[in-house]
Amino acid sequence: MTGFAADVLSLYPEMFPGPLGVSLAGRALGEGGWSLKATQIRDFAEGRHRNVDDTPAGGGPGMVMRADVLARAIDAVSPADDPRPRLLMTPRGAPLRQARVRELAAGPGVVIVCGRFEGVDERLIGRRQLEEVSIGDYVLSGGEVAAIVLLDAVVRLLPGVMGNDLSGVTESFEEGLLEHAQYTRPPVFEDEAIPSVLLSGDHAKVDAWRRAEAERVTAERRPDLWAAHPASRGRK
Amino acid sequence: MTGFAADVLSLYPEMFPGPLGVSLAGRALGEGGWSLKATQIRDFAEGRHRNVDDTPAGGGPGMVMRADVLARAIDAVSPADDPRPRLLMTPRGAPLRQARVRELAAGPGVVIVCGRFEGVDERLIGRRQLEEVSIGDYVLSGGEVAAIVLLDAVVRLLPGVMGNDLSGVTESFEEGLLEHAQYTRPPVFEDEAIPSVLLSGDHAKVDAWRRAEAERVTAERRPDLWAAHPASRGRK
Repeated sequence: MTGFAADVLSLYPEMFPGPLGVSLAGRALGEGGWSLKATQIRDFAEGRHRNVDDTPAGGGPGMVMRADVLARAIDAVSPADDPRPRLLMTPRGAPLRQARVRELAAGPGVVIVCGRFEGVDERLIGRRQLEEVSIGDYVLSGGEVAAIVLLDAVVRLLPGVMGNDLSGVTESFEEGLLEHAQYTRPPVFEDEAIPSVLLSGDHAKVDAWRRAEAERVTAERRPDLWAAHPASRGRK
Repeated sequence: MTGFAADVLSLYPEMFPGPLGVSLAGRALGEGGWSLKATQIRDFAEGRHRNVDDTPAGGGPGMVMRADVLARAIDAVSPADDPRPRLLMTPRGAPLRQARVRELAAGPGVVIVCGRFEGVDERLIGRRQLEEVSIGDYVLSGGEVAAIVLLDAVVRLLPGVMGNDLSGVTESFEEGLLEHAQYTRPPVFEDEAIPSVLLSGDHAKVDAWRRAEAERVTAERRPDLWAAHPASRGRK
């Protein structure tokens, strides 16, 4: 196996590759730049009904994914000496940030468990050392679309995937500021012109305008990011 | 048209419905509980090359999506009196939260513009009153997978979609705490037993344990949520 290897464990493996099979990620997948295997968790269930879940110990609504079934599924695709991190997509997880995306893209791949229902048995998380990851503070129908988001973010950073399309966005974002506004042709759209400084040809002025815009929009929209940014000191 | 109506504008309409065509969201889509139409932005471009983007005014890497092309695409699916909010998926946007998801689910639908490249011309955002939404602090290949995440979160809240599967997760999350740990059968997994309090049958004790666990895990993993939570007062 060459390149970044992703294994996904899911009750809906037919959701993969989905959008990851299209565009640049899809082309790289087709060319072997990365690999994706989706495994049906239910294939590791036992008994006549092949149950993957059961009612929560202590009562309450919903169902909990069983530790034993998930452990068999994980062990089948990821032996104990597998160097790849094992992630569990869950709203209880650590928020995904670009820095972690970059680390993952530099590694050998990932094993991703897609949670459903009320979550997975806590003992499985500990025994299989799952890293709990959240893509945001909202509730999804399951971890599958979260896994697609994580893989999309990682795959675009793999060597050769984005080509020249990999541009300034990442760098600016990692600096802790939102992007400045962008404009392109036509010069006038519905009576509104492009800000004249951007057409001045004065690179220093353009850079200063963009920097000020990035700081302004960050302070306005993301006081959390702005408070953590060096440029905010002494300006509050 | 009955129910929640989603229009998506994208350079990769073939990414839809993708994972939204599977599982409960997919069944509801098939039964007309909600509708999804993906429109190719390029169909609204002009000229021999049908360009949707151009170089950034002021220079810099990458390409910017043109205001005029996007405006024609938006106007074709969403007339001026369309009551639906128009969203632009972009890392510059306001972070998506469950409260906004719930508002959207209670409304008539959404129009979603999927950004690509270095972003879209700022004049389009203003003139078409686009609400900029971010699903998290990471960079995606485009707004498409972000749109899928947003729609997944919204659709599961539509009447009749989740049925009995819509359980406690949402409520707890909206309360500003992460979920407590969950356990289910078997009673012993790899020599580790379910915490005995959960098997005690004492509902008050179970509730207290779960509440303490939810607070502990929130304080540990999400100091930001914990600081904003009433229970954290006087305990720091």
